[in-house]
Amino acid sequence: MFGAIEAGGTKFVCAVGTSPDDLKLAQFPTSSPEATISGAIEFLRDQSDGELKAVGIGSFGPVDLRLNSPTFGYITSTPKSGWQNYDFAGAIRTALSVPVGFDTDVNAAALGEARWGAAQSLSDFLYLTIGTGIGGGAVVNGRVLHGLLHPEMGHIRIPHDFNHDPYLGYCPFHGDCLEGLASGPAMQQRWGESPEGLPANHPAWALEAHYLALGLANWVCTLSPRCIVLGGGVMQQHWLFEMIRKDLSQSLNGYVRAKELMENLDRYVIPPGLGNRSGIIGALVLAEQAYQKQQELGSLRRK
Amino acid sequence: MFGAIEAGGTKFVCAVGTSPDDLKLAQFPTSSPEATISGAIEFLRDQSDGELKAVGIGSFGPVDLRLNSPTFGYITSTPKSGWQNYDFAGAIRTALSVPVGFDTDVNAAALGEARWGAAQSLSDFLYLTIGTGIGGGAVVNGRVLHGLLHPEMGHIRIPHDFNHDPYLGYCPFHGDCLEGLASGPAMQQRWGESPEGLPANHPAWALEAHYLALGLANWVCTLSPRCIVLGGGVMQQHWLFEMIRKDLSQSLNGYVRAKELMENLDRYVIPPGLGNRSGIIGALVLAEQAYQKQQELGSLRRK
Repeated sequence: MFGAIEAGGTKFVCAVGTSPDDLKLAQFPTSSPEATISGAIEFLRDQSDGELKAVGIGSFGPVDLRLNSPTFGYITSTPKSGWQNYDFAGAIRTALSVPVGFDTDVNAAALGEARWGAAQSLSDFLYLTIGTGIGGGAVVNGRVLHGLLHPEMGHIRIPHDFNHDPYLGYCPFHGDCLEGLASGPAMQQRWGESPEGLPANHPAWALEAHYLALGLANWVCTLSPRCIVLGGGVMQQHWLFEMIRKDLSQSLNGYVRAKELMENLDRYVIPPGLGNRSGIIGALVLAEQAYQKQQELGSLRRK
Repeated sequence: MFGAIEAGGTKFVCAVGTSPDDLKLAQFPTSSPEATISGAIEFLRDQSDGELKAVGIGSFGPVDLRLNSPTFGYITSTPKSGWQNYDFAGAIRTALSVPVGFDTDVNAAALGEARWGAAQSLSDFLYLTIGTGIGGGAVVNGRVLHGLLHPEMGHIRIPHDFNHDPYLGYCPFHGDCLEGLASGPAMQQRWGESPEGLPANHPAWALEAHYLALGLANWVCTLSPRCIVLGGGVMQQHWLFEMIRKDLSQSLNGYVRAKELMENLDRYVIPPGLGNRSGIIGALVLAEQAYQKQQELGSLRRK
């Protein structure tokens, strides 16, 4: 039995179980680290009867994922009050005395989709969330991409025609980066209405699809994924998928000559197979990986 | 002893040897496939005294790199006359009866830099060439990124302020994608002068640095590389490096909080360690890999 935590800036989701079909879930708002983590630990303890083998965490960021870093498992320079330089993985490990797997929320979601969702058996794909922010988790050659720190995909720059859309953008760092133009808060600020409140025939959606398609085109050219899974609150407006596909096809303009992109975009740009549970189920995969790694280390030591 | 071919749209470089210090080189213009490939085969035969163990090819594209594809090793939909659907790897394998490694020219260059150049021992980095076109080869978790086909990094879209730069772009597919705005031919067409002819104080360079820095910022956010190696003809104007670093730093605006990006950009955005030989030396690495793979297969079969 594994424990899982999906740590978001506004809410925490916790789970205990073994698979998507065997999962006890709880959810509560993110407050101070002490209160929030205590709540998570209590839930994991209560639901597992002391049978927990490992815990996986998919966390909001930025986080430190460098395995040999003294601050591995920390949330680092977040603007979120109280959470700066917080030893997230360490707090859970100390409280529960089990191995802890740790990654970004979007990398966890990508792992969830790879294991039980829409990207099963794909060696190379991209998971994106479009919601409060925009973030991406990439799997390359069957492994999650981390690199120097971890990607911050929402912050790529795309063409922005000020004549057509004079909105300056929401991002405090970059103004009109993709997240600044196309996240939920950007839509809310530009149109004075939240994404859920904007009807399907509102011009907001053509613009939103256009910006997201430009981002997707850049990631197709850079990562050459075998599919792109789009999750997050904004994508709950399902008409967006077809609008994004059409705009992406125009953006690429037949340059990347793969059947998947030329003919089968409806199977290339797709919703998550796990709905809004990709992240928490991915955290379960992180727990499993942490457990396996400990077993392997133990077996190496015995040899 | 290995053979290597760096196949470009305008010239072929061929080599026979074992390392950068032991390499016989030849170069000739790219004409028809028959004439060009005959020339390459003749050179490889003559210089190796029949001792060739394998050949590696880094080729212009697009190419088919899917190992289980019936057209693996082909150049596919190139506009270059005569080379469409050309079985490049097959022609070399048939003529020389040795294993053949095959990849894009930029992936080969990335391999060369990883083995003997500026990116030694880096698990994650990006090699870019800025010349007749713009292309990128990424190494992620120690392996070359291929994905669905292979990246076409030059074709990402970046902000383009038409008021400041009314040039429409050179790319026949996308107009003002990065390659359309910042490749050598784009500079030539915009300014009526080739990059080599434009002095260091010409306004062309600030614009060029700005576009390239926007591309680099997008790749930092997407791939989180540990360093970015910039090669190709345009980068022979060495003042560009410092201009790009400054502009990149402004673009990222302190958001990605890694020392490498905040303090040490002069060791992060760097020229190739192998000068203009990254590609041909990378093709040698491809040959070595093809040879090792054959040995492993042979040893598996004997078991």
